Amino acid sequence: MEINGRNHRTIWLAEEGRVQIIDQRFLPHELIIEDLFTTEDAARAIREMHVRGAPLIGVTAAYGMYLAIYHGPGSQTLDNYLESTLQQLQQTRPTAVDLFNALTRVKQALNGGKSLAEKVVIARDMALKLAEESIDFCRQIGLNGLPLIEAIHQQKPGEPVNILTHCNAGWLACIDHGTATSPIYTAHDRGIPVHVWVDETRPRNQGARLTAFELDQQGIPHTVIADNTGGHLMQHGKVDLVLVGSDRTTRTGDVANKIGTYLKALAAFDNQIPFYVALPSTSFDFGLRDGLAEIPIEERSGEEVRFIQGKGETGLQQVLLTPEGSPALNYGFDITPARLVTGLITERGICAAREADIMKMFQE
Amino acid sequence: MEINGRNHRTIWLAEEGRVQIIDQRFLPHELIIEDLFTTEDAARAIREMHVRGAPLIGVTAAYGMYLAIYHGPGSQTLDNYLESTLQQLQQTRPTAVDLFNALTRVKQALNGGKSLAEKVVIARDMALKLAEESIDFCRQIGLNGLPLIEAIHQQKPGEPVNILTHCNAGWLACIDHGTATSPIYTAHDRGIPVHVWVDETRPRNQGARLTAFELDQQGIPHTVIADNTGGHLMQHGKVDLVLVGSDRTTRTGDVANKIGTYLKALAAFDNQIPFYVALPSTSFDFGLRDGLAEIPIEERSGEEVRFIQGKGETGLQQVLLTPEGSPALNYGFDITPARLVTGLITERGICAAREADIMKMFQE
Repeated sequence: MEINGRNHRTIWLAEEGRVQIIDQRFLPHELIIEDLFTTEDAARAIREMHVRGAPLIGVTAAYGMYLAIYHGPGSQTLDNYLESTLQQLQQTRPTAVDLFNALTRVKQALNGGKSLAEKVVIARDMALKLAEESIDFCRQIGLNGLPLIEAIHQQKPGEPVNILTHCNAGWLACIDHGTATSPIYTAHDRGIPVHVWVDETRPRNQGARLTAFELDQQGIPHTVIADNTGGHLMQHGKVDLVLVGSDRTTRTGDVANKIGTYLKALAAFDNQIPFYVALPSTSFDFGLRDGLAEIPIEERSGEEVRFIQGKGETGLQQVLLTPEGSPALNYGFDITPARLVTGLITERGICAAREADIMKMFQE
Repeated sequence: MEINGRNHRTIWLAEEGRVQIIDQRFLPHELIIEDLFTTEDAARAIREMHVRGAPLIGVTAAYGMYLAIYHGPGSQTLDNYLESTLQQLQQTRPTAVDLFNALTRVKQALNGGKSLAEKVVIARDMALKLAEESIDFCRQIGLNGLPLIEAIHQQKPGEPVNILTHCNAGWLACIDHGTATSPIYTAHDRGIPVHVWVDETRPRNQGARLTAFELDQQGIPHTVIADNTGGHLMQHGKVDLVLVGSDRTTRTGDVANKIGTYLKALAAFDNQIPFYVALPSTSFDFGLRDGLAEIPIEERSGEEVRFIQGKGETGLQQVLLTPEGSPALNYGFDITPARLVTGLITERGICAAREADIMKMFQE
């Protein structure tokens, strides 16, 4: 998608042994491109959220494997080296399952290579393939979600379709297009008037910083709101549709997504507003049945709640929001039970958040 | 309550014609005492939230009437002067009903004064009386809410009772003690271990700034959380009780309170956690039956969402959180329907959020 009128992706291979990313910690105020030369560069980028978003984390981890093999095992055996690299990348963040799914794909592909030189090519090509696959899945999610927006548009022609989203499940969370935003971009491209309510998404404000930035750059009408506001808007008929992404979804349709998603799902349910989750198949964890009991929820530093970064008079600044002596707790995700989810928008189509429907769509 | 070990109230008469308040815009980082000499000083203090919280707004408005009469009508007739002063104060903020209730009390009392000198004394004494009454009501709310906390404590002796609160319904929202915090302070004083989850309460962060400050100063264990977090904590059994205040409650038990309260009420209901609203009788609007349709919800500047204030390297600083071009919307309150409210804690006791029960408790 576009930044200042130029097409960008979130991650790309600049040349052999050098991967580039947009370091998203400084958006929307500064566009900074970062080089990743090593696995540790990639691991740090994931851990410290230079990149974030389930699909993007997965592809970055795949590139991390590629960078490891590119530099070679040194004095270690190749098997040990690959295994420790895999573990290093797996330990960066716990909730988004794309990370583990992507690493498994790379590991399996590497079994096919005989020489180190072959494995370098295999890892690189798998990272590139996962990136292209993600882009294709996101494009399909856009097409599959479009009829939902078209149907609302037909019920209120001339008025914008009001869509609420939480966090950033946009192209910055993926490689391009986004998951939750993809139907929005597709509708906008087809001339359907849309307006997006952007939850700011404390504590790290991925909504106010990233989703608002994306929409602003694409020229899509939007309004930033505090995370507290969505319920009130729904009570007053100002939300037609809720569209969010997912970091991990069980085979039974329980959805892990950014903390606060559950609260919006409750409000949508209470006000009979459709609540859809857009996700590629790479974000499913088909082995799990009970999201609340089984999906690990990341706990990050409380300092991310106590301090916030924004643009001040002298550039980007951190300010303290709480009393010096007050501790804070910071869970990254919550679970929206399947009973609150109207449907899942995947690259294969829309299905109900029910095991039978999910497994029918992904029966292999 | 205490700040740095010294007892404070939020507003007091320093001398004839001079009222003092804590200017709460700079807490927790700076304790600033402000003089109010005129009605416009009082109106500005309410409008620009130097003071906030339904009971405190009411008392500040009463002092605003006193200051007007203290300075006299000048060339206007006294009736016109009092009427325009009343309107000036009524127009400061729309949602909290204490403002209107307090001004009505002052106006009625003024009918009893013959000379201007008598009316000055009447207005002053009514402001003082309303302040003392609020303190008394808050103390009673503490005693009436205490058994709820005691009952939970008895079910899990040795463990802290975990109470979630939203916004600041503490002594800083009142004159002393607070509404939602009063049972917490009372329980703490009696040796019951309590721990408070403090919703930061975007956009103005009255939780992270004020409630955390109060609890920190009183030595009560607490943890600041993003507004998105409460649902997750409730899903995992980490909240025993939700206690919030109210800016206006209908005779049918619909509760207007800080935006986001509705979302927490939905989560409490979904997880069968008791959700109590603590409020003095001055926060009831006995004329209303339908909170969603009838209670005016304040819309404030979107700049309060786009910018945030905190303590930076060079003191208090404002930083921009969103892209320059992204607009924001800022509603101050939402309505929690009575069906989601377990009970109302008032100065007269606890009653169900049902018209029959409320009107029985306040039958005059």
